[in-house]
Amino acid sequence: MKVDICFSPALYPYYADSNDYIVVVVDVFRATTTMCAALNNGAECIIPVASIEEAEAYKAKGYLVGAERNVKRCDFADFGNSPFDYTKEKIEGKEVVFTTTNGTQAIDAASGADILTIGAFSNISALTDFCIKKQKDVMILCAGWNNRFNIEDTLFGGALAARLIERGYSVASDAVQVALSVWAEALPNIRSYINRTEHIKRLEANNLQDSVEYCLTEDTVNLVPVYDKVRKVLNP
Amino acid sequence: MKVDICFSPALYPYYADSNDYIVVVVDVFRATTTMCAALNNGAECIIPVASIEEAEAYKAKGYLVGAERNVKRCDFADFGNSPFDYTKEKIEGKEVVFTTTNGTQAIDAASGADILTIGAFSNISALTDFCIKKQKDVMILCAGWNNRFNIEDTLFGGALAARLIERGYSVASDAVQVALSVWAEALPNIRSYINRTEHIKRLEANNLQDSVEYCLTEDTVNLVPVYDKVRKVLNP
Repeated sequence: MKVDICFSPALYPYYADSNDYIVVVVDVFRATTTMCAALNNGAECIIPVASIEEAEAYKAKGYLVGAERNVKRCDFADFGNSPFDYTKEKIEGKEVVFTTTNGTQAIDAASGADILTIGAFSNISALTDFCIKKQKDVMILCAGWNNRFNIEDTLFGGALAARLIERGYSVASDAVQVALSVWAEALPNIRSYINRTEHIKRLEANNLQDSVEYCLTEDTVNLVPVYDKVRKVLNP
Repeated sequence: MKVDICFSPALYPYYADSNDYIVVVVDVFRATTTMCAALNNGAECIIPVASIEEAEAYKAKGYLVGAERNVKRCDFADFGNSPFDYTKEKIEGKEVVFTTTNGTQAIDAASGADILTIGAFSNISALTDFCIKKQKDVMILCAGWNNRFNIEDTLFGGALAARLIERGYSVASDAVQVALSVWAEALPNIRSYINRTEHIKRLEANNLQDSVEYCLTEDTVNLVPVYDKVRKVLNP
């Protein structure tokens, strides 16, 4: 089995030579971390949509909606993109519609994959076990930022790849080599490493850095969200 | 001034927020190294074309043609993609038409840039001086492999970025941070670092690794090829 990584949804067509693998979509800051938190707090499912217009249409029908663009909550929405917004009281048993700058676009790009999962530091152990159990190749798809490369998703990719390699997977590409290097370089002090990133500057400029620690903490939830064939993300 | 790097021609549209910079197209193995060598050996210019069909049409008109796909020379062509093919005796004073799997596509992608240059380890000092003299932002465009990320072009990007930063440039993005890390990690033993790459395996499988040392050697030529407005690459 092999583990590969694709640094941008725009590059996905050049990596997807088959659909016979597990795609792990990651958007550490903050879409995939937030989806894991929402499902852990009892949301029935998340309905990812790519556009603001779709999200507004759901809102008009009475759905709860999380919507973010350029790190900020959209005015019409119930929630933004912080994992702390999605509390048990607000979302337990509910379907939540969700659109973000990058994460939901990445899901869209990879929706043809056999198995599409949602990854974050918060579920990295559960996700590793899930992949090992399935015994399939793994393709990590970084959400990036407006299709540009970012460090935080690459860092997560390196962390997940390192765990899979420890358990018998092999390196599929130059991209995985570099993700492993990023992870090894960051490991002595992840918080200080991540402080150099473009995204931290964006979050700080909008006073939204309160969830950064949480987004970098491993194993706060024990579930693997899966995007099913009716276009919902569930905790099966 | 800032230095940025784009890991794939397919990502270039997401990086090119203006054309007001120097683009450095790099394809270490081997298109841009070979273009530098050909101009250094006295070729009048190189006419990069994206498709095999265009190259064949030039060949029919009597031009010298270099053409490579998937590391191998195309049957109809005079030369492949090795810098050693383009000797003084064969090309001095001649126009050479050139098409390769990745390098010429990258030139195509960035052809709207104010200044489009060709970079390789072989001209890295001349290129650094050129950028400093122009006092413009620099965008390094990696040719990659079929639009996928590769290590060797990223390595060169890190090397060039490090030189520019030493001379006053600042880091534009997460991507440059990672290219600098790749360069720093490889520096103690570049040849052994590069041995892990996908491209070395491709070259070895085709017995084409003879030019690898040359492609990784700094400053064997003292020129900066520029893509001019009549779509030719010249040593101005």
